[in-house]
Amino acid sequence: MLQDTEQTTICAQATAPGQCAIAIIRVSGPHAFEIVSKVFKSRRGKQLEDIKGYTICYGTLYKEDGSVLDDVLVSVFHSPASYTGEDMVEISCHASSYIISEALRALVTYGCQYAAPGEFTRRAFLNGKMDLAQAEAVADVIASETASSHKIAIQQLKGGFSSQLAQMREQLLHIVSLMELELDFSEEDVQFADRSELRELLGKTSSHISELISSFKLGNAIKNGVPVAIVGATNTGKSTLLNALLGEDRAIVSSIAGTTRDTIEDTINIGGILFRFIDTAGIRRTVETIEIAGIERTYYKIKQASIVMLVLDYTRQDDFEESVKNLTVNLGGDDQRVIILLNKIDEKPVVVTSLFEGRDPESITPEENISKVCDIISGIASSNNLSPLAILPISAKNQIGLNELRTVIANSQQYASVGTETVLVANLRHYTALKVAYDSLLKATVALNENQPSDLICQDIREALYSIGTIVGEISTEEVLENIFSKFCIGK
Amino acid sequence: MLQDTEQTTICAQATAPGQCAIAIIRVSGPHAFEIVSKVFKSRRGKQLEDIKGYTICYGTLYKEDGSVLDDVLVSVFHSPASYTGEDMVEISCHASSYIISEALRALVTYGCQYAAPGEFTRRAFLNGKMDLAQAEAVADVIASETASSHKIAIQQLKGGFSSQLAQMREQLLHIVSLMELELDFSEEDVQFADRSELRELLGKTSSHISELISSFKLGNAIKNGVPVAIVGATNTGKSTLLNALLGEDRAIVSSIAGTTRDTIEDTINIGGILFRFIDTAGIRRTVETIEIAGIERTYYKIKQASIVMLVLDYTRQDDFEESVKNLTVNLGGDDQRVIILLNKIDEKPVVVTSLFEGRDPESITPEENISKVCDIISGIASSNNLSPLAILPISAKNQIGLNELRTVIANSQQYASVGTETVLVANLRHYTALKVAYDSLLKATVALNENQPSDLICQDIREALYSIGTIVGEISTEEVLENIFSKFCIGK
Repeated sequence: MLQDTEQTTICAQATAPGQCAIAIIRVSGPHAFEIVSKVFKSRRGKQLEDIKGYTICYGTLYKEDGSVLDDVLVSVFHSPASYTGEDMVEISCHASSYIISEALRALVTYGCQYAAPGEFTRRAFLNGKMDLAQAEAVADVIASETASSHKIAIQQLKGGFSSQLAQMREQLLHIVSLMELELDFSEEDVQFADRSELRELLGKTSSHISELISSFKLGNAIKNGVPVAIVGATNTGKSTLLNALLGEDRAIVSSIAGTTRDTIEDTINIGGILFRFIDTAGIRRTVETIEIAGIERTYYKIKQASIVMLVLDYTRQDDFEESVKNLTVNLGGDDQRVIILLNKIDEKPVVVTSLFEGRDPESITPEENISKVCDIISGIASSNNLSPLAILPISAKNQIGLNELRTVIANSQQYASVGTETVLVANLRHYTALKVAYDSLLKATVALNENQPSDLICQDIREALYSIGTIVGEISTEEVLENIFSKFCIGK
Repeated sequence: MLQDTEQTTICAQATAPGQCAIAIIRVSGPHAFEIVSKVFKSRRGKQLEDIKGYTICYGTLYKEDGSVLDDVLVSVFHSPASYTGEDMVEISCHASSYIISEALRALVTYGCQYAAPGEFTRRAFLNGKMDLAQAEAVADVIASETASSHKIAIQQLKGGFSSQLAQMREQLLHIVSLMELELDFSEEDVQFADRSELRELLGKTSSHISELISSFKLGNAIKNGVPVAIVGATNTGKSTLLNALLGEDRAIVSSIAGTTRDTIEDTINIGGILFRFIDTAGIRRTVETIEIAGIERTYYKIKQASIVMLVLDYTRQDDFEESVKNLTVNLGGDDQRVIILLNKIDEKPVVVTSLFEGRDPESITPEENISKVCDIISGIASSNNLSPLAILPISAKNQIGLNELRTVIANSQQYASVGTETVLVANLRHYTALKVAYDSLLKATVALNENQPSDLICQDIREALYSIGTIVGEISTEEVLENIFSKFCIGK
């Protein structure tokens, strides 16, 4: 299904727009040298096509009218040893919008076409320089803002994911070829493939795919931010906490306008992982329809979150029981982590003297009291079958305990301990294809167990192979390619 | 006064910030290869210092912790054949903010310093790769937005201006050395230098400098925009005209907020030349202090403008005489160009029947009437000793006649016909130095004419040589360099 390499020669600025020292204009295609020769003269009179690949040539760039446009460096790459696999020239000029637009205009006059978004990478894929999963990783590498999302993208770019898929395909092809061999000899009723071995291979591959599918939740969270819901009764300091957490990281924060004013989302890079904090409406009993709607939304956010931070107010201990209960009934699943925060610990302590048997209230330190209150919270959590990751005393307003909180949040993600070799699926297209492949293998396994005819089993395995093939682009359609590359920037 | 080349190795992103295909990180200095080797491994295991200059090497960029940061291309330049004259490496990586910041961090860890603004070009200057005027041209080349400002900057970068200065210096040095030779033989009262020849040489050099000084008005206008004042009585459509002119060019327009709401400035690229349009307060007789202040400002703007566009209202012919008179008394100098615009020509025509002797008013076409009114305006202009460049009928509101206006504006600038070899001074520092040099030469000429002692004449010429020397940086101070390079972007 791969297309022929297009015969046009394309050009685009490959660096970000803006006045700066250097800009790069990329030219790729069969006529790259010929076209660039019309606007560029090497200082030493060399012809571009005679210049060795991977060498740089100093010279002058000219406008269409023959006047000098700039002094430039030109890098030469000969097909197939280039990014796209085609003849390529990279012109390194001064980053002036005037120079860049005039240079592109001249290139187009002499036969170049403006490159579409992602067209250089698309050509690299079509020319077999990288598979589709690697091509997609190029965009992810560029977009990644944290160490962990960068790690996933780089691994995919380097082919880590692709090689796992290749291994699976090989195993499945091995099975299917043995079974198809049997079909050729069907009248003789031979079995080249040991059925138990087949079953084992299928099981192994299925569970490998299953692992990759499960990794999507984490991979996607790392790419788009691990969702952290901040919940609690009204006026416990949830927004203050969010602002305090954002405050010091403001430089690497991006705001996502909530659909409603009562859920605000913001991402923060903590320990190299992107977390998406969701400030929710305070939960309280109400009969007003409009507030119920807000609270329903809060419940939904709680269910979606990977981490739920319950904020309790140190000065309102009567609310603890209800807040914890409210949370537990709304939690989504087993893999959610809960962190309970005892906020406002620097406000006037409410000393529960009954807990300090017979001691002079004056002798009880604030720390002792906070510690006791945390014990109470721990008890309430236990009685509600809740096992929080931590119960932390903090003051959002005065930035007390926030570093401890950050550490707990960062450590809550298993990825922190995941090695560089672990492959995580972070792309929805890959996830969907893997699920389809998994279902096909499940059908094949059932058919195998039921001793159904080999050709039916083969068909299921072939379907799984097809799905896996779409990920790396061995099977691809124009529509899929369009969808992938249109999201790229121009010049990539 | 040149400093020693600094011994540090510097690094910076040289491309504009922003997610894009490619970013370039530049490293320059004596330890460039050594430091980059710590974060980069060539695919073929080559050592950077062994790689030939002007070649590109494919490999992997690593973080400080040894994990893979990116697949990159690295360009190698050996001292002195590089931009800065030092050993240089350019790392071409994916334009992700994460990758760039990690790469710079790693480079700094291994001994690089973050480059100051313009530090690469400053080193190029200090290492004799370019003179100071050329270094300044680098910034101008990057900032130039139009064909004409680009032309000036490129010529300066290519050394056109510098070679003219070198020629002058040579001539002056020739004079001064002959005269100083006489001083050595002063007791013998010989004259090696022919006084009339000296006078001729001084006169030639002075007039050359004078030409350069005069070119500043145009050069500066081209660089910063030729000032065009739009004037006229209130409500003649001045703002509508400005908006109409801006409308189609919005993409290449930059807004400059006026200090007061009644003068708005905007620049437009017309025919490759930047024009700075100034919308002024309507002029009318008033006694109110606050309005008088606004009108004073308008008069000032008129004096400053290279082109003054007087807008007349076709429906208010009674105002013509006063408007023209008002303008003429406020014009600044002989070199100002005036364009008179007859606006609102598509509104209900005021037919001056007396001009169409005995003709049926119904038979007079709008075109005939407009033409007659233009004749009247021409007569008023003549009687006020005003020779407008053109009298154009337009409708700002309905965009009639605006292309004709643009052509007149573009053609009004002599630079349009100036060849690529003409040197224009566009830099205030150069202009000031040239004026000082001119004054010194004038003093020298007077002294020569008055037969003053040779040593006095020599001193004046030496002063002129000094001033010219500061332009190309043969004479420069840390303060001057700081002032020039601090305005550069980082990475240049």
